[in-house]
Amino acid sequence: MKNKRNVEVCFTPELLFGYYDTSAIVVIIDIFRATSSICTAFANGVSSLIPVAEVEEARVFKEKGFTVAGERDGTMLEFADFGNSPDNFSAENVAGKTVVYTTTNGTRTIKMAAEYSEVLIGSFLNASALVEYLIRSGKNILLLCAGWKGKFNLEDSVCAGYLASRLIESGEVATTCDSAHAAMDLWAEAGEDLRKYIDKAAHRQRLKAKNLDYCIDYCLTIDVTRVIPVLKDGILVSNSSDKG
Amino acid sequence: MKNKRNVEVCFTPELLFGYYDTSAIVVIIDIFRATSSICTAFANGVSSLIPVAEVEEARVFKEKGFTVAGERDGTMLEFADFGNSPDNFSAENVAGKTVVYTTTNGTRTIKMAAEYSEVLIGSFLNASALVEYLIRSGKNILLLCAGWKGKFNLEDSVCAGYLASRLIESGEVATTCDSAHAAMDLWAEAGEDLRKYIDKAAHRQRLKAKNLDYCIDYCLTIDVTRVIPVLKDGILVSNSSDKG
Repeated sequence: MKNKRNVEVCFTPELLFGYYDTSAIVVIIDIFRATSSICTAFANGVSSLIPVAEVEEARVFKEKGFTVAGERDGTMLEFADFGNSPDNFSAENVAGKTVVYTTTNGTRTIKMAAEYSEVLIGSFLNASALVEYLIRSGKNILLLCAGWKGKFNLEDSVCAGYLASRLIESGEVATTCDSAHAAMDLWAEAGEDLRKYIDKAAHRQRLKAKNLDYCIDYCLTIDVTRVIPVLKDGILVSNSSDKG
Repeated sequence: MKNKRNVEVCFTPELLFGYYDTSAIVVIIDIFRATSSICTAFANGVSSLIPVAEVEEARVFKEKGFTVAGERDGTMLEFADFGNSPDNFSAENVAGKTVVYTTTNGTRTIKMAAEYSEVLIGSFLNASALVEYLIRSGKNILLLCAGWKGKFNLEDSVCAGYLASRLIESGEVATTCDSAHAAMDLWAEAGEDLRKYIDKAAHRQRLKAKNLDYCIDYCLTIDVTRVIPVLKDGILVSNSSDKG
């Protein structure tokens, strides 16, 4: 019997210090809304996305003439061209462009993961393409949830559980990680009616309070695209072999 | 309708920075084995327990003539009187004594929680007494899992889920905390056959490798005692009103 590769789940970037295997591929998951929006941008033909963690960094890019997408706590930055919901990343807004992108949790998480061997962007939207790529990769896998301001959140964890379940069902991947087991158990319950399950998520309530919850059904849709955004030299580009 | 009190779950002490309500009662949960052992010590008549985080601190107490219980990574400290499994805290070993106690994760977590209004020790062993006390307290509640070296673990999270479920069933307590929802969902699955569920936990495997897994069934037993250990001026004593 050949050795199976390992999948681990990290519930928030604050716990990343405990995951030592930097030869692993990291998949960043921030369902509401960073990684769902990034997948949408590539599905709609964005040329590349420059993730920036700080507002002031984004402002400098804007002054240089870049298109900038950005919010803080659900409110669009006053100098940005558009906000962070997936529908902002329409073909009209992004096709053929390099877009600078900053969010509350997502971009920070991308930066923190940069030391791993490969950094991919995951969401429900590109789940099957991602799972197939991860199985083919031959590497260990770390599913890294962006969480919310350092805390565990339901939507990212449930997506990690879905991806982990698919990986393990393939027979090529196994786990001894308690977080992965928990995430898969949450998916086993949530998957029966994902929209209903996510109703109790705190961030769904936050989005509702800001009238941003119209994109929730879309963000919970499995397999809208086959794009796999990948981090190369600090910039997100499409993985060409899997381009949709 | 009166306002319900809030219960939150924190999956590891490394995430405690995100829980601001220091007026809450904190319940420390470290099922394998610190908080199970502490509950057992009080059920067996220990006078008080002095939790210390560092090995050298425990050694100084030993040199002063105290009884010391302590391990690191599952191996008894060479100068200790006994190790950290619940059966070490027998009436013969602890009744009427002050015992100094140091563990890998548990005592460190107790120290970190000291800024909250009240710090209790929780486990499956004292679950019902604890739930009744928490409901009577009138305070918000934070269930703090010790985890394993900063990581999420299944056994502590499932116990937090059991306690949170009981609190919410009382009708006095509610939650908007994603970790609490997840913990309750894990309990809903695990509770059907707790021993079987915990078989997949990484720390169960660690204990097995050190021949320390004989205490697992005991640590997963609900309502062995009604003692509620409570932290007073840095020392654990029994909450007299609930003494078993």
